Amino acid sequence: MFPKTMAAVCALSTALAAPALAQEVRADLRDEALDMFSPLPSTIPSVTDNPITAEKIDLGKALFFDPRMSASGVFSCNSCHNLATGGDDNLETSIGHGWQKGPRNAPTVLNAVFNAAQFWDGRAPDLAAQAKGPVQAGVEMANTPDNVLATLNSMPQYVAWFRGAFPEQDEPVSFDNFAKAIEAYEATLLTPAPFDAWLNGNDDALTEEQVRGLQTFVDAGCASCHNGINLGGQDYFPFGLVEKPGADVLPEDDKGRFAVTETAYDEYVFRAAPLRNIEVTAPYFHSGKVWDLRTAVEIMASSQLGAELSEGELDDVVAFLGSLTGEMPEVSYPVLPAETGDTPRPTAAIVQ
Amino acid sequence: MFPKTMAAVCALSTALAAPALAQEVRADLRDEALDMFSPLPSTIPSVTDNPITAEKIDLGKALFFDPRMSASGVFSCNSCHNLATGGDDNLETSIGHGWQKGPRNAPTVLNAVFNAAQFWDGRAPDLAAQAKGPVQAGVEMANTPDNVLATLNSMPQYVAWFRGAFPEQDEPVSFDNFAKAIEAYEATLLTPAPFDAWLNGNDDALTEEQVRGLQTFVDAGCASCHNGINLGGQDYFPFGLVEKPGADVLPEDDKGRFAVTETAYDEYVFRAAPLRNIEVTAPYFHSGKVWDLRTAVEIMASSQLGAELSEGELDDVVAFLGSLTGEMPEVSYPVLPAETGDTPRPTAAIVQ
Repeated sequence: MFPKTMAAVCALSTALAAPALAQEVRADLRDEALDMFSPLPSTIPSVTDNPITAEKIDLGKALFFDPRMSASGVFSCNSCHNLATGGDDNLETSIGHGWQKGPRNAPTVLNAVFNAAQFWDGRAPDLAAQAKGPVQAGVEMANTPDNVLATLNSMPQYVAWFRGAFPEQDEPVSFDNFAKAIEAYEATLLTPAPFDAWLNGNDDALTEEQVRGLQTFVDAGCASCHNGINLGGQDYFPFGLVEKPGADVLPEDDKGRFAVTETAYDEYVFRAAPLRNIEVTAPYFHSGKVWDLRTAVEIMASSQLGAELSEGELDDVVAFLGSLTGEMPEVSYPVLPAETGDTPRPTAAIVQ
Repeated sequence: MFPKTMAAVCALSTALAAPALAQEVRADLRDEALDMFSPLPSTIPSVTDNPITAEKIDLGKALFFDPRMSASGVFSCNSCHNLATGGDDNLETSIGHGWQKGPRNAPTVLNAVFNAAQFWDGRAPDLAAQAKGPVQAGVEMANTPDNVLATLNSMPQYVAWFRGAFPEQDEPVSFDNFAKAIEAYEATLLTPAPFDAWLNGNDDALTEEQVRGLQTFVDAGCASCHNGINLGGQDYFPFGLVEKPGADVLPEDDKGRFAVTETAYDEYVFRAAPLRNIEVTAPYFHSGKVWDLRTAVEIMASSQLGAELSEGELDDVVAFLGSLTGEMPEVSYPVLPAETGDTPRPTAAIVQ
């Protein structure tokens, strides 16, 4: 977080101390930055084939927080994408149904609507497709579409909410609409950050150190992969482009996008991680094996760019990444419909 | 839930249709009811040895929702006492660390401050003592006080919040204060219900059916155990006073309060369940084996009172119990402090 009072203090000291040259450099840097990055939009983005309405958002929020969407009744979307802790779960890899561990680190749901595709390997084209994944994954929520629909149809309030969210449809309670409602809610989870204020023209939004870090981020080539609104999430790159990290960080049996495309070219290829809120979403990488942001930056520099950053440069880049920590959307915790006699019972059994 | 519009409709039809006699019966019934029950107070109750302040409530809310209070980083208080679903988890018995099942059904946290003691066997005298239980239970959050404190001390924001909540103390970050803050938050979780409005003098708050159900509830003797503010939670009674239910409902190996007092007198003795929000907190009994409220009422009537209620009486009592479903407190979902390099890592390992 970047307290407003601290920003004000920095603004004051900058105004008093910064030489004219620094101001000029900043102006150039902003032009350069705006070629590579975009500030968060000030409104909820539109989503392909899914007009976003207040009714859909409210329904999606209920579904997002409802643990009864899992077979066991234990896990909701929010369990692994916890809005109280940066939109992820602070675990190496998530723990799901039957205490099984997921294969990859849970990415944050915050601002995820701006990623070109979802999951570390980009196998879901959008958030609606993504939402269908964990609910069915045996190691996550271990549910089936049929059981999700039986659960929803058993509660009249849910049926009414689906009707309100999809008023033009005869059978609004569907797995597609379940996913679309969740997508609509997730599209509202935006976190404007000091870096946005800076991109939008407010010099005082970043500290000197953060500006230096941005300069290093750009000059060292980080932005070649980490660009766009989310500083990442736009394209796929081999992890270990220059030098492969050890198997502790890059486990050999997870070949990334290869599993999606089945082309040798995509071995160990992953979607560049979006960097918004990275400071509050440790641990890092698809393996979740690195807990320290500075170490993660160091590994990225050597493995992807063949660069060795100085201690000072590392400090600066980490400070810059802190400027991507945004203000959380206010979330009023939902009150969910109560089960009825028709609601399928939760089951903790592990089906192989 | 009891929609206000429906209440208005009922009020209208009552005003038009109810004979004078019914009004008189109602007045007597209210006097009788006020001898046995009390409406929810309109303000947060005071708690012994724990002055409640806004700072303590806010801290307690953060702790209540923080999954990092568990060893695995998966479970928070809210996991099993979910404020989105009636303050419980809708499971027979909760699932905790290592996918282990807890021994008894999780009771609702809503209005729990008014119970004379906590847990099904009353082994915790208050909510602060209760809060220390699950966090350390191997089958629940599987944590230790030391690890909780190390976690809290690793995050400067938490330390600052403890300072603000316990300003007079030199070492505010303690396991006792952790529990007291949670108790303070939980003391705010009150759900005023139509039955309170009726006790407070509003005839229109209950339907005719609910009033009949209340009359049956009192006449049949239910209120002998289920009385006070929470219609239960005040005292201990043998489950199966008149006729022991089958082992499916009353498992033989759980002897209830016997484990606390070790007197034969307390075999299969449990705290009378508080009945507020009972309609939305299935399944029922300490075993969680009964999912249907009507069935639960039937079992209670026969096992505790030796009574067989007619179909109509059962309907009425269930309708009356619905009048105990209250309005949920508004909860803004907290934004929790981020971990630091000093924060103990979550562990999924099961220590026997």
